[in-house]
Amino acid sequence: MYDKGHGYSVSIHYDRRLYKQDIAGSVAHARMLAAGGILSDSEVELIVTGLRSIREEIESGAFPWRDSLEDIHMNVEARLVEKIGAPAAGKLHTGRSRNDQVALDMRMYLKDAIVDICDGIRGVQLSLVDVSGAHAGTLMPGYTHLQRAQPVLFAHHLLAYFHMLERDLSRFRDCLRRLDVMPLGSGALAGVPYPTDREFLAGELGFSAVSANSMDAVSDRDYLAEFHSAAAICMMHLSRLAEEVVLWSSREFGFVTLDPEYVTGSSIMPQKRNPDFAELARGKTGRVYGHLMGILTVLKGLPLSYNRDLQEDKEGAFDTIDTLQATLEVFSGMLSTMTVNRDRMELASGESYMLATDLADYLVSEKKVPFREAYGAVKELCSYAGSEGKALGDLAVEEYRRFSPHFDEGVYRISAASSVAARDIEGGTAPRRVDEALRRAREVLDQGGPARAMGRSRGEAVT
Amino acid sequence: MYDKGHGYSVSIHYDRRLYKQDIAGSVAHARMLAAGGILSDSEVELIVTGLRSIREEIESGAFPWRDSLEDIHMNVEARLVEKIGAPAAGKLHTGRSRNDQVALDMRMYLKDAIVDICDGIRGVQLSLVDVSGAHAGTLMPGYTHLQRAQPVLFAHHLLAYFHMLERDLSRFRDCLRRLDVMPLGSGALAGVPYPTDREFLAGELGFSAVSANSMDAVSDRDYLAEFHSAAAICMMHLSRLAEEVVLWSSREFGFVTLDPEYVTGSSIMPQKRNPDFAELARGKTGRVYGHLMGILTVLKGLPLSYNRDLQEDKEGAFDTIDTLQATLEVFSGMLSTMTVNRDRMELASGESYMLATDLADYLVSEKKVPFREAYGAVKELCSYAGSEGKALGDLAVEEYRRFSPHFDEGVYRISAASSVAARDIEGGTAPRRVDEALRRAREVLDQGGPARAMGRSRGEAVT
Amino acid sequence: MYDKGHGYSVSIHYDRRLYKQDIAGSVAHARMLAAGGILSDSEVELIVTGLRSIREEIESGAFPWRDSLEDIHMNVEARLVEKIGAPAAGKLHTGRSRNDQVALDMRMYLKDAIVDICDGIRGVQLSLVDVSGAHAGTLMPGYTHLQRAQPVLFAHHLLAYFHMLERDLSRFRDCLRRLDVMPLGSGALAGVPYPTDREFLAGELGFSAVSANSMDAVSDRDYLAEFHSAAAICMMHLSRLAEEVVLWSSREFGFVTLDPEYVTGSSIMPQKRNPDFAELARGKTGRVYGHLMGILTVLKGLPLSYNRDLQEDKEGAFDTIDTLQATLEVFSGMLSTMTVNRDRMELASGESYMLATDLADYLVSEKKVPFREAYGAVKELCSYAGSEGKALGDLAVEEYRRFSPHFDEGVYRISAASSVAARDIEGGTAPRRVDEALRRAREVLDQGGPARAMGRSRGEAVT
Amino acid sequence: MYDKGHGYSVSIHYDRRLYKQDIAGSVAHARMLAAGGILSDSEVELIVTGLRSIREEIESGAFPWRDSLEDIHMNVEARLVEKIGAPAAGKLHTGRSRNDQVALDMRMYLKDAIVDICDGIRGVQLSLVDVSGAHAGTLMPGYTHLQRAQPVLFAHHLLAYFHMLERDLSRFRDCLRRLDVMPLGSGALAGVPYPTDREFLAGELGFSAVSANSMDAVSDRDYLAEFHSAAAICMMHLSRLAEEVVLWSSREFGFVTLDPEYVTGSSIMPQKRNPDFAELARGKTGRVYGHLMGILTVLKGLPLSYNRDLQEDKEGAFDTIDTLQATLEVFSGMLSTMTVNRDRMELASGESYMLATDLADYLVSEKKVPFREAYGAVKELCSYAGSEGKALGDLAVEEYRRFSPHFDEGVYRISAASSVAARDIEGGTAPRRVDEALRRAREVLDQGGPARAMGRSRGEAVT
Repeated sequence: MYDKGHGYSVSIHYDRRLYKQDIAGSVAHARMLAAGGILSDSEVELIVTGLRSIREEIESGAFPWRDSLEDIHMNVEARLVEKIGAPAAGKLHTGRSRNDQVALDMRMYLKDAIVDICDGIRGVQLSLVDVSGAHAGTLMPGYTHLQRAQPVLFAHHLLAYFHMLERDLSRFRDCLRRLDVMPLGSGALAGVPYPTDREFLAGELGFSAVSANSMDAVSDRDYLAEFHSAAAICMMHLSRLAEEVVLWSSREFGFVTLDPEYVTGSSIMPQKRNPDFAELARGKTGRVYGHLMGILTVLKGLPLSYNRDLQEDKEGAFDTIDTLQATLEVFSGMLSTMTVNRDRMELASGESYMLATDLADYLVSEKKVPFREAYGAVKELCSYAGSEGKALGDLAVEEYRRFSPHFDEGVYRISAASSVAARDIEGGTAPRRVDEALRRAREVLDQGGPARAMGRSRGEAVT
Repeated sequence: MYDKGHGYSVSIHYDRRLYKQDIAGSVAHARMLAAGGILSDSEVELIVTGLRSIREEIESGAFPWRDSLEDIHMNVEARLVEKIGAPAAGKLHTGRSRNDQVALDMRMYLKDAIVDICDGIRGVQLSLVDVSGAHAGTLMPGYTHLQRAQPVLFAHHLLAYFHMLERDLSRFRDCLRRLDVMPLGSGALAGVPYPTDREFLAGELGFSAVSANSMDAVSDRDYLAEFHSAAAICMMHLSRLAEEVVLWSSREFGFVTLDPEYVTGSSIMPQKRNPDFAELARGKTGRVYGHLMGILTVLKGLPLSYNRDLQEDKEGAFDTIDTLQATLEVFSGMLSTMTVNRDRMELASGESYMLATDLADYLVSEKKVPFREAYGAVKELCSYAGSEGKALGDLAVEEYRRFSPHFDEGVYRISAASSVAARDIEGGTAPRRVDEALRRAREVLDQGGPARAMGRSRGEAVT
Repeated sequence: MYDKGHGYSVSIHYDRRLYKQDIAGSVAHARMLAAGGILSDSEVELIVTGLRSIREEIESGAFPWRDSLEDIHMNVEARLVEKIGAPAAGKLHTGRSRNDQVALDMRMYLKDAIVDICDGIRGVQLSLVDVSGAHAGTLMPGYTHLQRAQPVLFAHHLLAYFHMLERDLSRFRDCLRRLDVMPLGSGALAGVPYPTDREFLAGELGFSAVSANSMDAVSDRDYLAEFHSAAAICMMHLSRLAEEVVLWSSREFGFVTLDPEYVTGSSIMPQKRNPDFAELARGKTGRVYGHLMGILTVLKGLPLSYNRDLQEDKEGAFDTIDTLQATLEVFSGMLSTMTVNRDRMELASGESYMLATDLADYLVSEKKVPFREAYGAVKELCSYAGSEGKALGDLAVEEYRRFSPHFDEGVYRISAASSVAARDIEGGTAPRRVDEALRRAREVLDQGGPARAMGRSRGEAVT
Repeated sequence: MYDKGHGYSVSIHYDRRLYKQDIAGSVAHARMLAAGGILSDSEVELIVTGLRSIREEIESGAFPWRDSLEDIHMNVEARLVEKIGAPAAGKLHTGRSRNDQVALDMRMYLKDAIVDICDGIRGVQLSLVDVSGAHAGTLMPGYTHLQRAQPVLFAHHLLAYFHMLERDLSRFRDCLRRLDVMPLGSGALAGVPYPTDREFLAGELGFSAVSANSMDAVSDRDYLAEFHSAAAICMMHLSRLAEEVVLWSSREFGFVTLDPEYVTGSSIMPQKRNPDFAELARGKTGRVYGHLMGILTVLKGLPLSYNRDLQEDKEGAFDTIDTLQATLEVFSGMLSTMTVNRDRMELASGESYMLATDLADYLVSEKKVPFREAYGAVKELCSYAGSEGKALGDLAVEEYRRFSPHFDEGVYRISAASSVAARDIEGGTAPRRVDEALRRAREVLDQGGPARAMGRSRGEAVT
């Protein structure tokens, strides 16, 4: 990462990512200045044409980037002078400071990035729903403490991640709503003394509101800290799923087989098929957590208003955006292409000890035994069966009765399937509940790209 | 903190904080079991009476806490057995697991804590508005890079923090909305097999919704991670204000004098009046950041569903809650009692070099000089004045004209007051804009305790 | 943790842990003042007797702690006045400030804590060596990417942790060496103006050196940051071992069975035996990472010299000390009491595909095939065997030869045992190498408590 | 940073930094294989010549980097096949895995980086010593809590940083010592089955020792976590100095004027001279802290041995190396070129209240008043003088005597100079002590480049 060899204060090697936003911001600013009488119509046209040609140069690779000009703003401004001359270009910075300009650019960039991330989340949710749907009745052991606990539907397990991601998406939307505020007009810190139509700027650039305090607008970066938090939580969720993919594709579990595109070999062990993509996703959680800690550290204890420390807000944000987007894509593909080894899952689900709770529940429901008493009886029963090396289903009724006189033949009707079916409650793993949950998940996804509608900046449109 | 001497897996020394929530949850659960026919009316009454008496024991200090019972749930349950006997008490855990029980308790506790924190935020905002109102016209130097930049109103500076805190409050509300989900009925992980009226439980306990997936409900802690993030960002804002209070109360700045309640002396330097409270607030940012990193680390890479690692979610949360609440109280008091040294601020605001931007703006607005040309002229002018050791106002018109022929007598009309007045734009520092901002801030505060209305749990009411 | 209800600036509820160090420091200081003529012999005797009686009060629980006196230093000082009167007690603070006093106390406390932690590390290493010795020849699958890779000795796997812990111990020693510096004499920040025999104090209090710069001495806490780092790395190592214990004790792996003391049951699943202690250890990594981040945040950007933010250095340190010590004890016991299921491990070790690398090595060593060619042939061979559903050992020589003409009957001599034996290289898993490694590990442990010898403070001795 | 558009598992865009180490490792490995009879002399020559030519291609920019080959190892290996053919090139990977190869490369890279960082530290120390020497007698206010506390020598203040950096250097050396271990021979995880002269490899590549356990060698990254910690602490120290530079160059303090090379202007405020380099250094602390948290997160809970998560160890390390090296260079230059405004410092040092402690000390030393009594008297005296608006030196002896009868004309002999001179103790600020400290600091620096001698890898030499 981080190119070596740039000067200490130079940011152009990374902030040039903001070229589209910077140019769109300048176009809108020029139009606003014209409406306010500060630029003539012909000056605006000259400026807009010049900026468009700069954008084309950048996109074609022809733009002469200069480290000596430090950042994207000065690179664009200097190039504009070369193209249209100082008299017109020199007016563009009227009523604007780098402090509000960079705040604008980052807000626009982040708005678009969040929309893309929300699309990526939807993509993973879609894969989860598809796999769940394709394996609707498949049983698997549900785990607590990585010990087999109770049988569940594989679909129920996967849908847990659907809901985590739903909250992630909701967090990103809230973040977007809070950052959807247009800072231009704040100047260096105190506001600008020119007639400035901030609402016009907001409209042009696709913002819902204008900032309410100029000193806050140029110095605060909490929208970045909030974005990093939302990203960290989302990566945390993905790291959990990654851990499960690693476990499930181990020889010991054997629950899934990853598609060859999502495994890699070893340089010396010819037999290896390693779940590298899941491991990388788990590992990349580290960098995302790190960038969160980075921005919080940068901001701690800074007095108002703008301080140059704030330049350190960008690289971590860009990296977290890229990492999260790429990770979401990886999961979407990895999940939808993996083979689910139903036989292995169901074999494991048949372990009788996982039905111990159901035995206790049987005593409670059918025989009105207080739960704690039933629990105690079954605990001893399990201990006995274990020492005998027997499955619970292989015990005779008489053996059952040693631990509670209430046991009867009914215990043999308890199975993984009956256990799952009995959890027939909102949020439970009973098949009809999981079907219903799946149906609702599909509805959420079918409502279409709410993400995209919700607030993409107008960085594309404005020029 | 952390009491030494408890067993490694024991949590009762900190999770007993949850007693109120735990008991309220049990009362509601008992009523629900009765409605479902699992408990008789007399059993419910026995249980509820027993739980109430346990609550009284706890609140009077008479409760016999036992480390050997590890946590709040088992301490309460065992005490209930002692009070009302095993047959009735033993039925209470029907259709419930410690996994969903602890999730319930923490959600209820956190809901109330967030409401209190929102109240605390409102308290600081009120102090900011009061101080701003009391010093509405006071000028101070606005800083960027800790260099004097442009004059601003002190009220404008303070209101920047009002807006930061407004976003903090909004983040806490979003967090509360997402966590306002009732997990009971999820059981250990798969849902419970008893007739369970989850909507009834939600209603009794003051929740807006029930959880949609049992495995998610018992294993996810993203509401805590989100809470820690919101708290970290809020502490970050307060650390910035703390830094300013430290700077302002230094001999070099001298802008404010803290009330004796908020300074402390030295053990050997008799003259000292140190801003210890502001420093402690700044320092305590570290623990809040640390707890955020702690919970994210705990959750990274955990497979579903419940794992004992999750027990580590509480101490950090409790400490962040306490720290943030106490810090908000400190700021509220510290700000409202400090003396603002208007003379020192205004003396500093008179520094002529802070008007350099206004000189350039003058050339642009009055003389139609392109901004960059105007900026260049004033830059040289400042350099000249500096080398002459003169204030800008002490230069003759002829000296001004050496740098631009457009300068005229009008430059002498530029002052700190005119500079501030010129920034007459939404979000700007012009007096009428700041008055308007103050008025709107007061309106926000006058809308009354929206925080409190928004979602306090019914931990108090239910029993 | 963190007791609620103390004042914001009060630290006595946690810094009273430093009472022993504080009193020892005062005794030494009094003696030094006497040697310098500032105290008379009778005054010293009065002071030392008073301090001893205070220490007894504290240890018997009779000491009247007062929040209003804020910290340990003032509590002790005020009590001394009560006991021996102001004239004598009032001289004790001559040539000393709370700033250097608290630095002294923490350094003494931390020195002792590090020695104890080093003992704890030795304890875990001893368990690792004992278990390794008891299972010297046991084979297990070696994993990369949680995929079975090559057979290894279980002892070799465990000894990897011995070496990690050896580096941890070495880091703690380096930290101790750097912090073993006596700060008294630095005063508030500038040094004291009294004749002060700092070498005498260092000798009395068991320090190897005196601090070289008074401003550094009262304001730096890098020894704490370094300690937290060393602790975080050590917890990271333990979290890895915890993860393995969790995996190994799962039904799917089944490699070890934990002693009942190190598992707990479920509140509703009677069959469960959960590895809670290993999970808690893994989870507690979060708080240790968090405290590291906390102290680094506190220190970031603080100007010289003492700032009250530094009071925030203690709680995290105490908690990390307690957590690490307790975790080391847990591991020591958990490892030495677990049952190793040799059959399960060796069954898993028999999987033929783990010998693929050995097949390639066979072609290289015996048949002079270039490694990459051999690797390619075996890769195809494995793919073929997999599609046939056969173990490698079940393939006929003719089938081997389809992939390389160099294969011959020798391939059937390759086994898990031969694979392990072949890695006969320093650091390799061949039995004789592992025996040798074990022997050297025992030597290290037999060298006796180097930790203890290395620098315990004289907090006990001096009074 | 982070180039977009590379595949998720691709690392070649950043790990190509390791080309020198990778090639040196391969050369040494080839020679070792030849000594073991696995390669013929002519094969070794072919390989070494091929590798040298690859190195030249890389350094001249002619090397055809291929993302499809993912990493530096495979890029070099594939290129070698193209250059010298598969038969010879295919033998080079005998007895080696990417797992030990990448561990080797990173260790070599980090050894060199640490040596360079130690040089950088020495550079800043030299600047500190030079500035201290040039301003040996300059007084400044010493601060605690950012309140003026006692006068100190400016040189004494600066030398506090000399000592912090001395500990930083010592930490880096300890880290280097621990990482100076050669991992080749560990293979994928179990050790290699070929005759491998690991001591020869260590010698060739400049290592002091070989790793003792192959599973540890391929899976542990604690040397990176330790490096990141040392770097974080060093950046923390630099962030404190940066904060002071920002304060000192503010208008309010005015203690130093930075060289124009280390300040930058504003885009709209023509008068500004902002300490951007100091601010950036302070801000960059965030990324270094973040990378530390990143690597710790990556490693938490990973089972043995190699997991692909470990690939995430590099970018953060490279960035921290670059950031720290650049920051050290910036400080070295910024300090040695800044102008010290002695007049401003000494004016501030004259504030009489900073002599309050000396007044108390006077009563103690000259009049045998117990310290606490003296302290109390002076505290009231200060309060009185403050309310009278008088400096302490302007009070009459009679006024002094109102607070203690022991005061006499001697109080007028107390001055900033006498205060400083009185702190004549090891580590104190008395001029002769500071001179002595300076002399010793120079001695340390004159001992020459111990850093360089201490363990640079032989990445350069071996090829």
